[in-house]
Amino acid sequence: MSTITDLVDRYLASWNETDARRRRELIAAVWAENASYVDPLMTSDGHDGIDAMIAAVQARFPAHRFSRLGTIDAHNDRLRFGWELTPEGGEPIAAGTDFAVVANGRLQSVTGFLDRVPNMD
Amino acid sequence: MSTITDLVDRYLASWNETDARRRRELIAAVWAENASYVDPLMTSDGHDGIDAMIAAVQARFPAHRFSRLGTIDAHNDRLRFGWELTPEGGEPIAAGTDFAVVANGRLQSVTGFLDRVPNMD
Repeated sequence: MSTITDLVDRYLASWNETDARRRRELIAAVWAENASYVDPLMTSDGHDGIDAMIAAVQARFPAHRFSRLGTIDAHNDRLRFGWELTPEGGEPIAAGTDFAVVANGRLQSVTGFLDRVPNMD
Repeated sequence: MSTITDLVDRYLASWNETDARRRRELIAAVWAENASYVDPLMTSDGHDGIDAMIAAVQARFPAHRFSRLGTIDAHNDRLRFGWELTPEGGEPIAAGTDFAVVANGRLQSVTGFLDRVPNMD
């Protein structure tokens, strides 16, 4: 399970990495080349698409960080884990659950569901 | 959303249908031909495999019923919904969350995760 934990935690680290080069390295390490991401608000494919999506989220929520919520539920090649999004020095503004399919040690697809959504005022 | 609700509720009805012919009809209506199911305990593929899996679960838990827990969370071609397993006249003994991919109005894949597991005594 430590390999899975490392994969998920590096995945979340890629959402938090604002240095473009380091973010891209994390994405390449964590995602399969032809990977896809989908949630209620966004869709992306491949390393370029995922990188652009994360950069857009960082621009929308500057100084916020994603962190894992609870443990990772893993069986076969499938994962489920919770996350929350927290502004620096504040309380979490959003939380969700990601479902993932793993192939050859990297993420093949991630589907995000929102459990608690940010106030968009 | 009513189509999605109907799909999920017929999916759960197929888990509860002990008449072999009616169960098979429900499975054909609800699942794509090349569909797959995976959870921590079982894996099955195709209508024959799914039917055999459900029959085995019914044999293991006679007079129990699956029911939906809460609303269905749907976006794009993805679904998330909770369920529980309840013996006739009793309290739920297990609960889980299913994550599904839909294609052409039928289930292409379902991944089950267990949230509360039965006492196997």
